[in-house]
Order: sequence, then C-alpha cells, then structure tokens
Amino acid sequence: MHDLREAGAKAARIMADHLEGVAERPVWRPVPDGELAWLTGQELPETGRALDDLLEDAREHVLPYPMGNGHPRFFGWVNSPPNPAGVLVEPLAAALNPSCAGGDHAGPHLERTVVRWLAGLVGFPHPPGGGLLTSGASMATVICLATARQQAALADGWDAREEGLSGRPPLVMYVTEEGHSCLHKAAQLLGLGSRNVRLVPVDGAYRMDVRALRAMIAEDLDAGLRPFCVAGSAGTVNSGAVDPLDDIADVAASYGLWFHVDGAYGALGVLAGGAAPHYAGMERADSLALDPHKWLGVPVGCGCALLRDPAAARAAFSLVPSYLVDENAGDLGWFAEYGPEQTRPFRALKTWATLSYLGRSGVKGLVEHTTGLARTLGEMIEAAPDFELLAPVTTSITAFRHTPRAGALPREVDALNRALPVAVQARGNAFLTGTRLGGRDALRTCILHPGTTEQDLVVLLEEIRLAAKAL
Amino acid sequence: MHDLREAGAKAARIMADHLEGVAERPVWRPVPDGELAWLTGQELPETGRALDDLLEDAREHVLPYPMGNGHPRFFGWVNSPPNPAGVLVEPLAAALNPSCAGGDHAGPHLERTVVRWLAGLVGFPHPPGGGLLTSGASMATVICLATARQQAALADGWDAREEGLSGRPPLVMYVTEEGHSCLHKAAQLLGLGSRNVRLVPVDGAYRMDVRALRAMIAEDLDAGLRPFCVAGSAGTVNSGAVDPLDDIADVAASYGLWFHVDGAYGALGVLAGGAAPHYAGMERADSLALDPHKWLGVPVGCGCALLRDPAAARAAFSLVPSYLVDENAGDLGWFAEYGPEQTRPFRALKTWATLSYLGRSGVKGLVEHTTGLARTLGEMIEAAPDFELLAPVTTSITAFRHTPRAGALPREVDALNRALPVAVQARGNAFLTGTRLGGRDALRTCILHPGTTEQDLVVLLEEIRLAAKAL
Repeated sequence: MHDLREAGAKAARIMADHLEGVAERPVWRPVPDGELAWLTGQELPETGRALDDLLEDAREHVLPYPMGNGHPRFFGWVNSPPNPAGVLVEPLAAALNPSCAGGDHAGPHLERTVVRWLAGLVGFPHPPGGGLLTSGASMATVICLATARQQAALADGWDAREEGLSGRPPLVMYVTEEGHSCLHKAAQLLGLGSRNVRLVPVDGAYRMDVRALRAMIAEDLDAGLRPFCVAGSAGTVNSGAVDPLDDIADVAASYGLWFHVDGAYGALGVLAGGAAPHYAGMERADSLALDPHKWLGVPVGCGCALLRDPAAARAAFSLVPSYLVDENAGDLGWFAEYGPEQTRPFRALKTWATLSYLGRSGVKGLVEHTTGLARTLGEMIEAAPDFELLAPVTTSITAFRHTPRAGALPREVDALNRALPVAVQARGNAFLTGTRLGGRDALRTCILHPGTTEQDLVVLLEEIRLAAKAL
Repeated sequence: MHDLREAGAKAARIMADHLEGVAERPVWRPVPDGELAWLTGQELPETGRALDDLLEDAREHVLPYPMGNGHPRFFGWVNSPPNPAGVLVEPLAAALNPSCAGGDHAGPHLERTVVRWLAGLVGFPHPPGGGLLTSGASMATVICLATARQQAALADGWDAREEGLSGRPPLVMYVTEEGHSCLHKAAQLLGLGSRNVRLVPVDGAYRMDVRALRAMIAEDLDAGLRPFCVAGSAGTVNSGAVDPLDDIADVAASYGLWFHVDGAYGALGVLAGGAAPHYAGMERADSLALDPHKWLGVPVGCGCALLRDPAAARAAFSLVPSYLVDENAGDLGWFAEYGPEQTRPFRALKTWATLSYLGRSGVKGLVEHTTGLARTLGEMIEAAPDFELLAPVTTSITAFRHTPRAGALPREVDALNRALPVAVQARGNAFLTGTRLGGRDALRTCILHPGTTEQDLVVLLEEIRLAAKAL
C-alpha cells in the first residue's frame, strides 16, 4: 500500500495545482489532434500500468482539456465550478465505495441528512423519506413524473406499473415553451408520448400564462383526455424565469393534477434577498427537482428529487414484496425502492461536505453574489447601445444579444448572434452559449462561479465585440 | 488555496489509512445509536466549516461504518471493493468537473475509449458511438429497452416517443424467473407493464428453457400481442447462471425480436479460461448491459450500455433538432442524445484508470482468481456433510445452504437459512446474503475481491456454522 499512499499524495497535489491555476489558463481550447488521438485512440494495455504513470497521464493529457466550467469567465449552460470540499471528499467516498441502495451503513444515513438540508434550504416540506439523490435532474424528473403517473392511474382505479399504458386513455401534462427538455425526455421515456405534452404559452417575461393553462386543461377534458400533471419552472435555463408557481398550484389543485416544479437550476434562487415573492407557491408542489451539482457546485453528478408524499414514490418504484423488506430498514425501507437505481453511489458525502463548508449563510451568499452579478450584467447591457437585453433578470441568468450595426435586418442580427458563441469560445478568454428566445437567436450567460467579478463581465462584453468584429 | 493543498494531502492519507486497515476491521457492524444520531440528525450549520473539520468528521463518523464490500470476506450481493486506481483519480475528475453530455473536452473523448475497451474485453462488436456509461446497469437497461421499444414501434409504423403507448397493443418481453429485477423495473418505468413481462421457466441449472420461450412467443402471437424483446442473462445474481445465449439469439432472430443481454455482473466472466463456450451468442445481442462497478471494481456508480446499432439509441433519445446539432460533434453527436441524462459525470476517468491499472491480463486474472475461488467453495460445500450446493458454479457466485440437522423438515431448513445471513453479518467476520432459489431459501456468495483467499472461505463456512449454533 506504500505505492497507494504516495500516489494519493501526488493525486492531491495534481488536484490542487489544477484548481489553483484555472483562472490563468484559457477558459477552454479545442483538443488538439495529437491529444485527441491519445484520448480516443489508445489501446487497452495487455499488462497493468503503475499508479504513478496513470497520474502523469491524467496530468498531461486530461486536465489541460477542461470543459471550462472551473473558470470564473465560464458562462455557458448551467455548469458550475466544483466546490473544493466536494472535491476533497471524493477519494474518501470512493475508498468506502458503498452502494447506497439502503442498509445500515454511513452512506444511506447521511443521505437522509443532505436531502433534509436541501429541502430546508428551499423551504420545501420534508417528511422523513421524502426525497433521494439522483445522477441529476433528468433522473429526478423521471422519478417525479413516474410517481405522478402512478398516482393518476391509481386515482382512476388502475395500476400503470402492472398494466402498462396500452389500452388506457392518454395522460396529458403541461409545461411552458420554455420548460426544460428533460421534461419532454421523461414524458417520452415513460411512454406518455410527446404529443401529450402541451406547450403552454408564456408571457412577456417568459413565465407560464396561467390563463392559457386553464383553457388548455378544460379543452383536453372536453376531448375526453386525462390531464394528470403540470410542471412549473423555478428558473428556466434560457432566461431564468420563475413561473407563477402559486397560481399554477391553484390550477393544479382545482383540477386534481400533480404539481411538479423543475427547480434543478433555480430553486436555490429563493435564498436571495427579495427573491422569495417570485417563488411563492413552490412549497405547494407535489414534487421538486433540485440539482446540488448546479448552483451549489457539488461535483457532477448529483441531483435530488423531493416528494411531498414519500409513499407515492415508493408505490411507483418499490419491487420488494413485504416479506422481503429488510427488517432493519424501518418504515422508510431502502432508497432503491424510491427510484430506478439499485446500486446507488455515495452522492451524499460530497453534498454533505459542500453544504457544511458553505453553511447556510455561504449558500445564501453564493446565490446573492451570482444573481447580483447577473443583474449588473443586465444593467451594463441596457446601458450599452450595441447590446439588447431580452428578458428580465430574475436569477443568475442574463439573456441578451449583440446589435452592433444600427438598422441591421432581423435575420442578420440572428445570424450574428448564432455565430457568436463559438467565436467567443474559440478566443479562450470567456465562454458563453447561445439559445433561441421568443423566436430570436440569443446569447445567454449563467453565472455560478463564486470567483466571478464585475471585471469578468466587462471582459465578456469586450470579447463578444472583438469576436463579432472578426466574423 | 494553501488550505486546499493541505486538506488534499490529508484526505489522501485518510483514504490510504482506510484502505490499508480494511482487512483488520470488522467486515460490517451496525451503526451505533450515537453515530446514527450524528449521521441522520445533524443540522445544517449557519456559517461554513473548515475543510479540516470536515475531513475529521468523515474520518470519525463516516469511514468506520462501511457497507463492508471493501473487506476480503464480504460475499454479499454483487458489490466489489474499489479498485485503487479508480479511487486515486476521483479528486482529479471532481477538480475538472466536466459534464460529459458532449463537447470537445477530455471527458467525452475518453469515454469513447473506455466504452470501446469494455466492448473489446467481452468480445461485443463495437461500432463507433455504440455505447455509453451510465450510473449503473439499471439505467443501462432502461436505455437498451427504450431503444428496443422504439425500434419495435418504428418497425410497426408508429413512433413510441411521439405517440406514447396508449392505444397501441401491448409490447411483450421475455425474461427468466431468475432475470434481474432491473428488467422488471425498466418495463414498468417504460410503461410496458409487468403483466407484459413473461417469466420463462429455467432448467435445472437455472438457465432459460428456450423451448418454453418459443412456445410462449407463439402463444402471445396467437393472442394478437406484440412480442418485441427477449432478455438473456450472462450471469444471474442468484446463481451466476449464464443463459443459452446462442439459442436465444436464434429464437430472437427467427421472430424478429430485440435480443438484450444482462451482463451487468457476469459479462466479464467470459474472460476466464474455458468459460467462452458458456457465453457463445453474447456477441449476437442487440444490446448488452455491463457494469464496470461490479467485477472490475470501478468505484460506484459506473454502468455501461453497449449497442450494436448506435443510431437506434440515438433515435430513441435524441431531442436535438438537426439545425441545432453541435457542428463540431461529428457524426456521433453528443452522449446526451443516447440516453436520458443531460449533465453526465466524468465516469470515464475512473474506468480508464482501473482498466489501465489492471491491463487486459489483470482483468483476466481477477476474473479467474474469483471464479476459481467460487468453484473451490463449491467443492468445499460438496465435501461437507452439513452444506448443500444448490446450483452449478459458472461464474464467481456460489449458491448453497446449510443443513446441519439430518432429517430436518424442509420448512426448518428454509427458516434456518433465512435467518443465517443476518446472524453471520452481525458477527462481523464475514458478510453474506440470502436469496430464494428454486423455491428454497438459500445462501449465496459472490466473490469479487482480489484479496480473498481460500482461507477466507474456510472462515466463512465456520462462521455460518457458529452463527447457526447460536440461533
């Protein structure tokens, strides 16, 4: 084990070197051909290699080619830098290497704590057993919607797990045009069908038009369909818009629909001073998806599904006949009874470490710092004649576009903004991505890095200008 | 960052201390009440805590309460000890912290390599893009069966993703009574319905009765149902039985069914000398699930779905309209188009490190060492008057029972063997679990630890005898 001891110390040094130097290196650069050949083309060695060689390989061929999200000027998608405490405990979790399917060992017990902490942070009710960690929000969403599907079936006197959906009327769900693709993927996976996912229009701030929602439900009922679920967003990925959750909860209650909230990115935004009114009603949801690997920076992958009624998720997933239930498991049973995974990684340790390292005030501070910067960026854009803000800034996302030439045709502005993200990325000084918003090609930034400063925003806008000139 | 540098070195020491001392500590012990209160009851601190404090907490309250699978006398379920190289690179993966959804950075590129290596190890055809890493075999199975579902629908002229299953005839799949529960969970999740999962009987060696399979398919066709998939096992979890895959492939081909192989645990067993004939036909599957976090010891969670036709999985999952496809992604697109996950952790690094550390000969050696021990245990059991072997030993699983009292009634033997696993576990010197096999309560062991010796098997049988006497 001497070898492992030395190698462990070396791995820690490489890790620290990497994190220390992130800000001085390019945000991102394309993987050069020679390195691509190494990464994709190598052959499995016939005989084993030394631990030290593997670390040198990782240092030379892997760590120099990051996605970019460790850098304070990475504004792409919704990918955060890793929290140092989360990084630190990874070898401990791996050395222990439990399956957190359940059982009486540290992993599943600690998972109870972090799920409770997450629910507490966003003010969601948390009955014991009312949640579990997943690989990310996509899987959390699958769990929540599968639970909703089974509850709707049971309410109608059938069993979706046993019978399947064949021969039953379509179950219809409602999301906005701005709802995340994982909701559509989940509907397809669950056999509901994309055509039974209604796209509710949004208002000028990209929030669900609740009047339209009501009308669509009424129309589907008239047509003999079975509305079963409405999914609101607590922070869309395009603009950060938070749907009018309280109004949606009213509609869901009046029609007896499951109310799911996609808070994967934005649920923690409720912690920013003054943000609470935007989030009113989130606590009324039947289920809430919330990703610790987004705003909190818990190393990927760590999502979380929170459920108002733990028994509902168990009814949708548990395959354990009563006589086989682990006698020591207590009323809550095993985590594997609440979702599709059997062997489950020890996601709780890095989440516990991250939350403990930040503390409640640290989480709040991180959310306020990043939403504050997003607002500042919005103000800089509104003050600049060559930029246009496309949506109100509610969380830490700012959606905008570059409009350097007065009188340019709409399709020219679209083409420019469609080309800009790749051009900016290639310069290596900042990283942002594009999207479409209200039918227009847009630039968008999501600020999640605790080390990002106002000066980084100045650099970002300048990089966009420089990239546009070179196009 | 000085703090992180010191903390990283300390984390490495704690990791090495833990791994060095595993064999000298109890395999498992119940979490005492005081520690349970710490693990489940603590409150989120208001202000952040120091990295060093978190490491001390983990050392004191988490690492002493393992699941047990790091110990050479852990024979429970199918949970391996962590491979040292896999442990070592975890902080590097977390420090880089990419999402392996796709893109031009080290993570997705390295994933192409390890998936190819895994396919190559088990002799499965590997077209570029023909597989991806998942959280485990349960999710790999969901991907494979969702792909099968969509292919069956398309062959019949409809689109399961778009339409959903409502209004279409039931899709029927076939597994043996010994098939893993993840196959049933996947069928439920996908909306197929448990009642449309046929349980094919097994022969005396717990292998699929292929004549019965044919008869069941013919019967379902006569009834106007739509058989679409047959799932064989390359190593069941109860007995390690490998189904007659070549014969199943013939049946699947003759009826135009998707042929899925569950090799989560056992696919690598093909590497043992003389084992290849048992696995004949595995290479004919349309999809194969194979868990790097099982026999290889890659830290949990890491599963893998392998697909003969990459385009089929993409057709079942991709939500990216053609005009939005990443121009730099090449023909294969993004990994996120081949499964339900969007943000995907860097599972490839620990898998690459583990495979490189072992080399092909090391993987083969590990498989041969552990299957050899399982056979030895089978021989020890057959030679012992107070034990009974319940199934042939094909992989590294041995299924048996303790029969200390001659002339005991069947229900007494069942009761004893049902009680034994918990009694053995509580003694702390060995850990095994129970199951039911052929209607009888059974003990079973799965040997995955490279450090397990024949002497450990002697201890195991003696521990069972001692536990039985105390019952």
